[in-house]
Amino acid sequence: MSATPPPNQVFIGTFIHSKALDELEYLHNTAIFVEGPTGTIVAVERECDKTRRLDETFNRLGWSAAECKIYDTTPPSSSSSSSAQNESDASLSTPPPPVRFFFPGFIDTHIHASQYPNAGIFGKSTLLDWLNTYTFPLEASLGRDAAKARRVYARCVARTLAHGTTCAAYFATVDVGATNLLVDLCLAKGQRALVGRVCMDEPATCPAWYRDEDAAEGLERTRECVAHARRADPEGGLVRPVVTPRFAPSCTAASMAALGRLARDEGLAVQTHVSENKGEVDLVASLFPAESGGGAGYAGVYDAFGLLSDRTILAHAVHLSEAEAALIAGRGAKVSHCPCSNSAITSGAARVRWLLGKGVDVGLGTDVSGGYSPSVLDAARQAALVSRHVAMGGEEGDKLSVEEVLHLATRGGARCVGLDGVVGGFEVGMQWDAQLVALGVVGEDGGGGGGEGNVDVFGWESWEEMVAKWLFNGDDRNTTKVWVKGRLVHERRS
Amino acid sequence: MSATPPPNQVFIGTFIHSKALDELEYLHNTAIFVEGPTGTIVAVERECDKTRRLDETFNRLGWSAAECKIYDTTPPSSSSSSSAQNESDASLSTPPPPVRFFFPGFIDTHIHASQYPNAGIFGKSTLLDWLNTYTFPLEASLGRDAAKARRVYARCVARTLAHGTTCAAYFATVDVGATNLLVDLCLAKGQRALVGRVCMDEPATCPAWYRDEDAAEGLERTRECVAHARRADPEGGLVRPVVTPRFAPSCTAASMAALGRLARDEGLAVQTHVSENKGEVDLVASLFPAESGGGAGYAGVYDAFGLLSDRTILAHAVHLSEAEAALIAGRGAKVSHCPCSNSAITSGAARVRWLLGKGVDVGLGTDVSGGYSPSVLDAARQAALVSRHVAMGGEEGDKLSVEEVLHLATRGGARCVGLDGVVGGFEVGMQWDAQLVALGVVGEDGGGGGGEGNVDVFGWESWEEMVAKWLFNGDDRNTTKVWVKGRLVHERRS
Repeated sequence: MSATPPPNQVFIGTFIHSKALDELEYLHNTAIFVEGPTGTIVAVERECDKTRRLDETFNRLGWSAAECKIYDTTPPSSSSSSSAQNESDASLSTPPPPVRFFFPGFIDTHIHASQYPNAGIFGKSTLLDWLNTYTFPLEASLGRDAAKARRVYARCVARTLAHGTTCAAYFATVDVGATNLLVDLCLAKGQRALVGRVCMDEPATCPAWYRDEDAAEGLERTRECVAHARRADPEGGLVRPVVTPRFAPSCTAASMAALGRLARDEGLAVQTHVSENKGEVDLVASLFPAESGGGAGYAGVYDAFGLLSDRTILAHAVHLSEAEAALIAGRGAKVSHCPCSNSAITSGAARVRWLLGKGVDVGLGTDVSGGYSPSVLDAARQAALVSRHVAMGGEEGDKLSVEEVLHLATRGGARCVGLDGVVGGFEVGMQWDAQLVALGVVGEDGGGGGGEGNVDVFGWESWEEMVAKWLFNGDDRNTTKVWVKGRLVHERRS
Repeated sequence: MSATPPPNQVFIGTFIHSKALDELEYLHNTAIFVEGPTGTIVAVERECDKTRRLDETFNRLGWSAAECKIYDTTPPSSSSSSSAQNESDASLSTPPPPVRFFFPGFIDTHIHASQYPNAGIFGKSTLLDWLNTYTFPLEASLGRDAAKARRVYARCVARTLAHGTTCAAYFATVDVGATNLLVDLCLAKGQRALVGRVCMDEPATCPAWYRDEDAAEGLERTRECVAHARRADPEGGLVRPVVTPRFAPSCTAASMAALGRLARDEGLAVQTHVSENKGEVDLVASLFPAESGGGAGYAGVYDAFGLLSDRTILAHAVHLSEAEAALIAGRGAKVSHCPCSNSAITSGAARVRWLLGKGVDVGLGTDVSGGYSPSVLDAARQAALVSRHVAMGGEEGDKLSVEEVLHLATRGGARCVGLDGVVGGFEVGMQWDAQLVALGVVGEDGGGGGGEGNVDVFGWESWEEMVAKWLFNGDDRNTTKVWVKGRLVHERRS
């Protein structure tokens, strides 16, 4: 990524973003002005007559059009309304142009970068045997082999950017050097990230070859990673450190208490897992009888150690009690819903509607490699499908709509990572973290449009239907460009 | 597709296919000899030393190597064992070559070609409202507009071929002309298919603008389509007609009885839906009290009309009773499991392990557009995931493994479409219906390998792990070539 800040930019076309949990807004013929040095959206001009309105805005902002980079995504000869509805314009000789729109970058609220090479590998395991069989050996190997860590992390960041992930909350490994490398790679590649060194020091559950010696060592190593991240990105504008106790069963009480104090004293975000699997829930109850007793449950353990605040991201939250959900809501802690993972390793089906109803903020996590896919679009698709399994066992109203899962993937995620109002939508004052999506249009003879992946637009679809097609059949081929803070960080080779 | 039969061919490399429900066989350094005119596998030479063994086989078959087309997929300078395990050979300057293997073509045992443009569009609907809102209007429109039918069917056949579907059991529409067009397109593009005109004549459930007038008209139209398919492919070597009562609620008793007689008299396959959705099950009980009574259930209705035989494919089978499963097993009828569809339109979670335990043959169906994806690989992935939801509500043993869902996608499907022992595996005497799969390998610097889609091989994986990665992150980009009956019918533009 270039160190030079980009120039002022104007993006012109259709913008789609979430306005509310169940509402996507469609802004057609719109121009969004992004200030170069800060990546901030400074103007959103809707339904604009390009020549006149752009000039007015340039004048108002004091910008020179000549010095701006202008991305005009409207088809060359289109009329003023949606090109996608102009089926009769399609020519037989040249393939129809794709339908294009800007969408906010996705936010992955839970992903283990270190486990990326194991994506898709989990057999018939469930959480606790999966950790020992597949996960700990791979994570430990990255600490012993810096070249391997670089290869794995570089690929993971490049892949998630290609999937439109403009911000990720990463678990790295126990190792300080490898964790710091992940920070450096996120900065180099321009991805917004929270990066956490994994804290685990409980000898009863963590292998001797992969853990912190004790709470003091865990704290010290965590401080080293916090310091590195703060040196690398002093303002935390792109990358921030995050306190990361793996999960209660892998941490001693002393460790969690120390990490809770660190997070409070330093104003740091916290990420961990909660109530993913029934065996794990039982294990927590047996390991922390005092903290989890009296109905406090698994979530109560984190609360007892000062780890539950509005800067905390809890992954999974599948088997929570009413009391735990109320506690999480009361503390303002966030939930990362990881549907691919929860189905793949047979953890359960999280009740997202129920959590939202309790006032809990929810985002989506790929949870690579409990989850098999590093794509938040895949996570959103599976969130819709898993919600239907929840509905089959309960209330019809538990189903999540296209609009709702895309809300979780953007605005919901932004709330989880402490960037509510900063990213996840197209509004003046927010940052330009965005993706340009292209959907292929089928030619009159049934050909064409193949370059943009598996979504086939026939031309008669409504915009709502095209977005549904993207959600259910889209992939990284549809994400043609990705920006973070106004910087182009991924461009698809066509 | 060329009308000239291909020459004799030899395929060399790694072949992976299903040997049993829970077993994939890995044939490395193997050569498979395919006879040109018939597309039949005439020799499988394992662990062959290329120069010597190939010559011996050429001599035995009386073939001339010079007149053969030879596809050697082994990497140029590889040693005798798997290239994928040679991580240290990877060069920094050139991207590592992909890992390649042949896999049997997929069999889609249930897909509505006419609904292809609606893939991904279903909102929060369930079966009966989904039919009226999304499905019937689209299907009916293809009968009124031949150009639209051609565009939709051409795209559907091209897409499914690109996904590695070498054989599909298609529902077309009520319209004779459009159904015949689908037959012609499958033949032209070289896809093996069962093509069925949809029979529906029950005025109480079918709109006046989209149904057969009565049983007699339905039978006559069906006969026309059967005759067309038989004229187009007299031996049925590629395309065969299939009797297709939509489902019991859309057919009068007279119609089902007539279709049952037609299927028996003409030796035709039958395809329909059974027990997809609870509301539908109740509807069948109320429409056919006599036939479904006494525990006969929904499946009993088809049996009463002579529609349940070992040539019958029943899609879904989500809510069957023990007695129905026993009846289906007793008749030798087949089940098409459609996990994407069952989750998407909230039908339920079919108990595949339970069906297999009853002795029922099961294949996979994409069920476009109740299912959102035309890819059988997607269906296999979702079959694994949905089985985990079944397991969460029942027995741990209900989970389906990677090996099992890929068995359903190939051998299981072959049994459903009446091609057991003909397609679905690599054995002497079987047809060469196959795909060449390529998985990208990550370079030492974390780059490379992007052309082959989202699967990232790091080089240390076992073959079993690479296949799991393909199942969970693969897509049509990994399917680089597809053959049916020895003919190359799809080649990926790289």
